[in-house]
Amino acid sequence: LKNSSFSIIPIGGVEEIGSNMTIVRTENEDVVIDCGLLFPYEECFDINYLIPDFKFLDPKRVKSLILTHGHEDHIGGIQHFINFFPDATIYLTPFCLNLIQKKLSESKTNFKYVIYNSDSQLIFDTVNIFPIHVNHSIPETHGLVIRDKELNWGALYISDFKVDLHSSHEPPIELEKIKLLLQVCKRTAYFLDSTNIVYDGKTSSENELNLDLTQLINSSQKRIFLTLFASNVHRASYIAQAALNAGRKIVLMGRSVRHYFEAGYNSKIIPLNPENFLEPQAVKDSNEKILVILSGCQGDFLSALRRFSFGEDSNLKPTPDDLIIFSSKVIPGNEKKIYRIYNKLSEFGAEIVSANDALIHSSGHPGKEDIKILIANFKPDFYFPIHGESYLLKKHFEFIKSHYDNIDCRLIYNFHEIKFESSIPKIIKQDKLDPVIIHGKSLEIEKSQISQRRKMATQGTVFISFIKQKQLLKISTIGLPLMVENLLPKLEQKLLHQINNDLQSREDKYFIDQIKISTRQFFNNYLGYKPVTEFHLL
Amino acid sequence: LKNSSFSIIPIGGVEEIGSNMTIVRTENEDVVIDCGLLFPYEECFDINYLIPDFKFLDPKRVKSLILTHGHEDHIGGIQHFINFFPDATIYLTPFCLNLIQKKLSESKTNFKYVIYNSDSQLIFDTVNIFPIHVNHSIPETHGLVIRDKELNWGALYISDFKVDLHSSHEPPIELEKIKLLLQVCKRTAYFLDSTNIVYDGKTSSENELNLDLTQLINSSQKRIFLTLFASNVHRASYIAQAALNAGRKIVLMGRSVRHYFEAGYNSKIIPLNPENFLEPQAVKDSNEKILVILSGCQGDFLSALRRFSFGEDSNLKPTPDDLIIFSSKVIPGNEKKIYRIYNKLSEFGAEIVSANDALIHSSGHPGKEDIKILIANFKPDFYFPIHGESYLLKKHFEFIKSHYDNIDCRLIYNFHEIKFESSIPKIIKQDKLDPVIIHGKSLEIEKSQISQRRKMATQGTVFISFIKQKQLLKISTIGLPLMVENLLPKLEQKLLHQINNDLQSREDKYFIDQIKISTRQFFNNYLGYKPVTEFHLL
Repeated sequence: LKNSSFSIIPIGGVEEIGSNMTIVRTENEDVVIDCGLLFPYEECFDINYLIPDFKFLDPKRVKSLILTHGHEDHIGGIQHFINFFPDATIYLTPFCLNLIQKKLSESKTNFKYVIYNSDSQLIFDTVNIFPIHVNHSIPETHGLVIRDKELNWGALYISDFKVDLHSSHEPPIELEKIKLLLQVCKRTAYFLDSTNIVYDGKTSSENELNLDLTQLINSSQKRIFLTLFASNVHRASYIAQAALNAGRKIVLMGRSVRHYFEAGYNSKIIPLNPENFLEPQAVKDSNEKILVILSGCQGDFLSALRRFSFGEDSNLKPTPDDLIIFSSKVIPGNEKKIYRIYNKLSEFGAEIVSANDALIHSSGHPGKEDIKILIANFKPDFYFPIHGESYLLKKHFEFIKSHYDNIDCRLIYNFHEIKFESSIPKIIKQDKLDPVIIHGKSLEIEKSQISQRRKMATQGTVFISFIKQKQLLKISTIGLPLMVENLLPKLEQKLLHQINNDLQSREDKYFIDQIKISTRQFFNNYLGYKPVTEFHLL
Repeated sequence: LKNSSFSIIPIGGVEEIGSNMTIVRTENEDVVIDCGLLFPYEECFDINYLIPDFKFLDPKRVKSLILTHGHEDHIGGIQHFINFFPDATIYLTPFCLNLIQKKLSESKTNFKYVIYNSDSQLIFDTVNIFPIHVNHSIPETHGLVIRDKELNWGALYISDFKVDLHSSHEPPIELEKIKLLLQVCKRTAYFLDSTNIVYDGKTSSENELNLDLTQLINSSQKRIFLTLFASNVHRASYIAQAALNAGRKIVLMGRSVRHYFEAGYNSKIIPLNPENFLEPQAVKDSNEKILVILSGCQGDFLSALRRFSFGEDSNLKPTPDDLIIFSSKVIPGNEKKIYRIYNKLSEFGAEIVSANDALIHSSGHPGKEDIKILIANFKPDFYFPIHGESYLLKKHFEFIKSHYDNIDCRLIYNFHEIKFESSIPKIIKQDKLDPVIIHGKSLEIEKSQISQRRKMATQGTVFISFIKQKQLLKISTIGLPLMVENLLPKLEQKLLHQINNDLQSREDKYFIDQIKISTRQFFNNYLGYKPVTEFHLL
């Protein structure tokens, strides 16, 4: 890279959703944008999450991490990042700092940080980065304008946003500032969010929800239980205030709702102190008019919503006199978990209102009309769809191609380096690194081991130990139909026969392999599948 | 039950989707309607499916099974049913017979059957059952009118249907016949499909798809790959004919597409003989204009569509010159699998058209307007929502309650007996039996064993064998992070120490339990979770 140039390299969040991480590479430094986590496409059996593989980066070159906002797919890998790059400075906003401090408090991790806001300029060796206030579904979200010092190139990078011109709790996205910052550059590029690109319209304003939310709260005589994405503290705060106005007491249920409420209050974004709300125990047997805000709108197994819906919460159980409001959407993959909750609540006779029944949820991502507003405000020379799966990137690409003749749109994927050094950005494919799988105490677990787990889960296990000298054989199974207990004496006979006839004098490796093969075949005959077999020769 | 009365008892398909099975109980007989399979809500690790527990039924009373249509959630348990009730007679239509004969051909199972059509009357001891032709998404679907011989009660039972007044390949649902059969009864009841009840409109006619399907096929110069629910042979046949008209060669890929095409041809429902189509090998390197119909619209792991989309089919691989048509919908729970296929196809540059982009799929189930047509045709005294999860049953119930003052609508669940013996049906709750889990060679596997599999999948396993006399200890693990190999000598030391100090002289059960506890604690300290531990004391 020449002094005056820079590259942008997404290493997560493009071609998949989640684990957002992008490198701004200059001659001497790799500035990292975000460090998120990802949930895998295929069942990995209760693993915690995946994170990008930091081995792609040279620790000597990583001095800075800029966090654009506090969603888990942007900050979830932070503990691992700090372990790997302990000297890096983290640039973040007060709300995001609150979230991270809480997250890291258990492990007592220290880190260096700098608070920024939308007036800041972040100065690096050959690039300046300007945070841009944007609208999204969590407070204090920022896009970034990245410019080299000679103003050859200016790039607007916004992974998550919508254009909300009428929000009552924050200003609209800073369109004018984007224009001012970019129009002085010789060449410009956009990197924009693809999440909602299949939506033809304009994403609705957070403000448009107030009517239906207030009406639901004011007109119902029932107890109200409401779930939402807990990180949307503006909405949670609006709902709590509306309930207080309607004479309802507020109860928070679930770690995540409490966590974000506290961060919102501590960073002075919302005026409601969660300490003034009631505890679930306090309304256990009371007839008070309450509104309970619960974590778990995606139906997570250990969430407050699921516990409540299954009648497993010790203080509050669903009744026909309850109204359950889902101020949320279903993230693809969670349908079954959420419908199961609908079913359980229905069996208790509770009434359910979801975003299908009233305007009570709005996305945080841009529809086609939001994108058009950005381009009408300032038209870039180049355009790169980001933040979305391959299908959405392609849809985004096709939308730009078909609507804007004079924008050069390119499809990029993770580990593509977009090098802004001549008049046309050069795209260089870097070697891909698979994300790292994290389980238990923040430990890496290998793909091969996940595949072993899958085999045990689908085929059960057989454990055999054998004392050669004594001809003593012991067999036990885990996760096989109970009827196989009756087969074990037969298997024992078969194996002992095989040992006496063929294996007695053979070397250990051959011996073990043959026993395993026979065992797996034996079960395959009865069950139609071959259990994982472990053999101890003693 | 008196001579003149009967009961209806759903034992599957109400409060969950799938495993449809309903009993018509008379004084001397249990007539069974359908025998379907179910896929579980929670991950059961590649099990085949669940079926209703037949132990609810007395084999002496089960002489007849009526199959309403050939979908797997209505016939999928047939092998188990015949094993359990070998003397029962199965009433079915020619297409359904073809499907079942193929299904049972491998196990060479014999069964007694009677072919019925919509002119038939099925006569049992105290009830007569009249099959009613209805529209759905598979040929030869029937509802049933069930009447006692004294015409005190008449019930219309249709688990799957829509009202298609304009289909080009079959007559509309027999509304007039329903009216004629029921209006002579003193009292009447409806049991109707809840699957699509949240849809306010009228489900579109299969005919309405022809325009967009034909246009897609005629206007594209690309190779076309089309996937759909293979059981919809009317649509598959229409599409194949349209492609032939457009000068395209037809290729079938996937067992399921082939299976239903053959059944459709054999039972003379469709005129196209699949033997005249090309094999995938024949078009491997050719430039011929083809339309390939593939199995796997739900993204199943071993399906033709998934293999093709991942570039794993040896004959045909996706290219930017391919158009992929999804003439189907996403069944909840399959979103991630299907989006993964969208992503893979997009990465190959293929164009995707789904039911979001054109009118190329229509449901087989009634929206609210379809239900209104049935009630306008004949209004029953009583009404029971069936065929749907609890949430949908409740929505269906609320719809009937709010629109029809003088229909007495009741919510029922599986194992509720609805007894038609006085002027008001009596609802009696029977003891529920959990569905039976089937894995491998059609074998039952217990819930407890599935739970063992879950533990191994999420926490790995440790195997330990110990020869007491020799103080010889052996430890191995499966499905744990590779780093634990380094911990095993430490664990061995710890266990030997514990044995020498505390366990040497203890009885076996105590000895084994203590070793297991120590082992699980040891790993918990490092990993944050406790592996399944199996111990052989020798």
